[in-house]
Amino acid sequence: MQDHVTPRRVVILGGGFAGLFAARALRHSPVAVTVVDRQAHHLFQPLLYQCSSGILSEGQIAQPLRKVLRRHHNVDCVLADATDVDVKAQLVHARRPDGGTLELPYDDLIVAVGMRQSYFGHDEFAAYAPGMKTLDDALDIRRRIYRAFEMAETAEDDDERRRWLTFALVGGGPTGVELAGQIREIAGHTLDREFRTIDAEAARVLLFEGSDEVLGAFGPALARRAARTLRSLGVELHMGTIVTDVDADGVSVRDRNGAVSRFAARTVLWTAGVEAPPIAGALARATGVEQDRAGRIPVEPDLTLAGHPEIRVTGDVMSLNRLPGLAEVAMQSGAYAGRALRHAVEGRTKRPKPFKYRDLGSAAYICRGRAVVKVGRLHLSGVLGWFVWLFIHLAFLTGFRSRLGAVLSWAVTFATSSRRERAFLSSKGGPPPGAGESR
Amino acid sequence: MQDHVTPRRVVILGGGFAGLFAARALRHSPVAVTVVDRQAHHLFQPLLYQCSSGILSEGQIAQPLRKVLRRHHNVDCVLADATDVDVKAQLVHARRPDGGTLELPYDDLIVAVGMRQSYFGHDEFAAYAPGMKTLDDALDIRRRIYRAFEMAETAEDDDERRRWLTFALVGGGPTGVELAGQIREIAGHTLDREFRTIDAEAARVLLFEGSDEVLGAFGPALARRAARTLRSLGVELHMGTIVTDVDADGVSVRDRNGAVSRFAARTVLWTAGVEAPPIAGALARATGVEQDRAGRIPVEPDLTLAGHPEIRVTGDVMSLNRLPGLAEVAMQSGAYAGRALRHAVEGRTKRPKPFKYRDLGSAAYICRGRAVVKVGRLHLSGVLGWFVWLFIHLAFLTGFRSRLGAVLSWAVTFATSSRRERAFLSSKGGPPPGAGESR
Repeated sequence: MQDHVTPRRVVILGGGFAGLFAARALRHSPVAVTVVDRQAHHLFQPLLYQCSSGILSEGQIAQPLRKVLRRHHNVDCVLADATDVDVKAQLVHARRPDGGTLELPYDDLIVAVGMRQSYFGHDEFAAYAPGMKTLDDALDIRRRIYRAFEMAETAEDDDERRRWLTFALVGGGPTGVELAGQIREIAGHTLDREFRTIDAEAARVLLFEGSDEVLGAFGPALARRAARTLRSLGVELHMGTIVTDVDADGVSVRDRNGAVSRFAARTVLWTAGVEAPPIAGALARATGVEQDRAGRIPVEPDLTLAGHPEIRVTGDVMSLNRLPGLAEVAMQSGAYAGRALRHAVEGRTKRPKPFKYRDLGSAAYICRGRAVVKVGRLHLSGVLGWFVWLFIHLAFLTGFRSRLGAVLSWAVTFATSSRRERAFLSSKGGPPPGAGESR
Repeated sequence: MQDHVTPRRVVILGGGFAGLFAARALRHSPVAVTVVDRQAHHLFQPLLYQCSSGILSEGQIAQPLRKVLRRHHNVDCVLADATDVDVKAQLVHARRPDGGTLELPYDDLIVAVGMRQSYFGHDEFAAYAPGMKTLDDALDIRRRIYRAFEMAETAEDDDERRRWLTFALVGGGPTGVELAGQIREIAGHTLDREFRTIDAEAARVLLFEGSDEVLGAFGPALARRAARTLRSLGVELHMGTIVTDVDADGVSVRDRNGAVSRFAARTVLWTAGVEAPPIAGALARATGVEQDRAGRIPVEPDLTLAGHPEIRVTGDVMSLNRLPGLAEVAMQSGAYAGRALRHAVEGRTKRPKPFKYRDLGSAAYICRGRAVVKVGRLHLSGVLGWFVWLFIHLAFLTGFRSRLGAVLSWAVTFATSSRRERAFLSSKGGPPPGAGESR
């Protein structure tokens, strides 16, 4: 890198898995990288539910982006929310937390903004049923879970007590399943002998899922086993049901036959769907590409935008061959985009091979000693699945200290059911309802 | 304890050091204890500043009250805010977090509600200058400290950059001194080589104190040494100054000669004073006792209220012989009140000996390897003081796991300056400005 030449400017929107892996792939390239994120931390999202359930602290799953990238001397991090892209002027417009604006010129743009929680057009549900995408969400959910038991203890009558002891989870994907397992474990083990009036163990956990199975992505055999494990934990599964209304008192659901029922529950958590953040729409309008139904942006086989070889889209917000929104896809697509850009900078003229996702498998934790894992044709569940889950998450968790901390926290929680991070804030701790989050 | 006799009902207001030690002293008494607190956790307040500075997590300094008291089978915990005391009917009125009300009848009342931050009649300062009394406060301050450096990095001009890199601390007691040391350490060590535009090390920390010295309670010799250590850390001490105004841009101060100056600072933290929460005023009105200037309640030598032998006042909110608001005073007075009550229940008719505070010493941490400690006539500072500080805090921190966790966190932070808990929330995370906190 020669000092007297202005290096090629690369702007990466988003510091999640895709953005981080893209920045890392550019480490030894003579480019000036700017990572823009509305959070100052990189979040290890697959363990966010353990932060909300009191096993891990915020710092164990979220590290400052600029600390993670400290030794990448060509990378700067900017805490701002990208609001628009001017593709003609090659300029990203962003808003700082204090309302000030920034203009970030780029020669190359890597979009890795992720997806946010979707309420399928019912953003008014958000006030009653937080999603699980950010640290703010996780602390909000932690507060709701533990406070519900406190409120039940001093409830005025049995009806009210039952409402506080009923937890409704919307969505039967990994996050919904993990949360369901966590709440049943908290009720049955963590809170053991702490309450004088209520029987915490009697807490009901209802899981609503529109399809016929939980963890459908893991295939029918593992889905069946997951359902069995959940039922044995005491989770009440309501398959084939659509949630039609959410308020402070509970949820209304409609089943396949159109029958509507009402479930009283003071705590409702939402993990049912995702949608692209507004910046994806802005980019689509600026480039003329058409987003898919959830707002994802279709890309060419090399992850560039049609007609815009200088713009690459990676991670959850990328639409390509119906790839799922998994951490692994985000890492691989981010690394691919960074590498492709590095090759271009190095002057390689050969067209890069199309991006190909290598499915290394997926895993979902259900409860202590129970997880389901799918690696190619290998399907694991139960204790063996759980060990593999443990290994995978340790391998990918960022930083040695986080790994050590997580192992210690898991060891104590698995041995004693005690959870260290149960203290919750008085205030909501989450963003105002309906506020967009583009992680 | 006979089942067919209704046990004597003891209500303890507050689950801080005083309330916790009172409940513990009643463990083997045939009484029914109810601990009422507006937080569900017991907070180890002396380390709160380490939570705000990113060394410790919330769970390392705050444990669920009902978990701490789990094996005290005669204790129940209630998450509610005591709003009034009906001393004739012997009834505490309280408000649950959802707005519902509770009535708690008592035979004996132990008041241990602590003190909250005081802005000396300027509650409007709270929005710009959070205090440091609760977990919400600590996370709010964590966000303000780390976000300030992020904002400086993308500031529009040098003036704005300087404002973001200036931290004004109001109050030169232990909390103010500890925070000043923490911010200088973060600037000079923790953030080392993470920023590309700003020089984090150049961050200014201004400490404003109305008296002539910091840590005045430690005596002139230690106060001088503390001031020297702070100056060598780069903290700018402004002694003999009163803060007259606080807004989003900084503080206005007046010195002894009446000269007014203005300091631009985007981050202002307030540790200058305390006042009693509203429930103390309600109790004073109900019993006819007169609060002191800060709202503390004067007590008899046995900690009862004049004319109300069934009401005992303990901890920071108790006014007796000008005892300072220290954790140690709270622990001893709470334990005394619990013991006196136990003796009364056991039918001892002998008047208890007056409460006598045994000064076991006090300690304040300044920075890595530097603390001041005063134990009777023994005055320590520097590394030796720091070792004694370490020992004291480990001895008193509640729970084995918290101790182990704190030792590990301290070891890493002291060795590498790295702080694990740097992730901050997007939202304020604190209570709305002016909202009362009575911990």
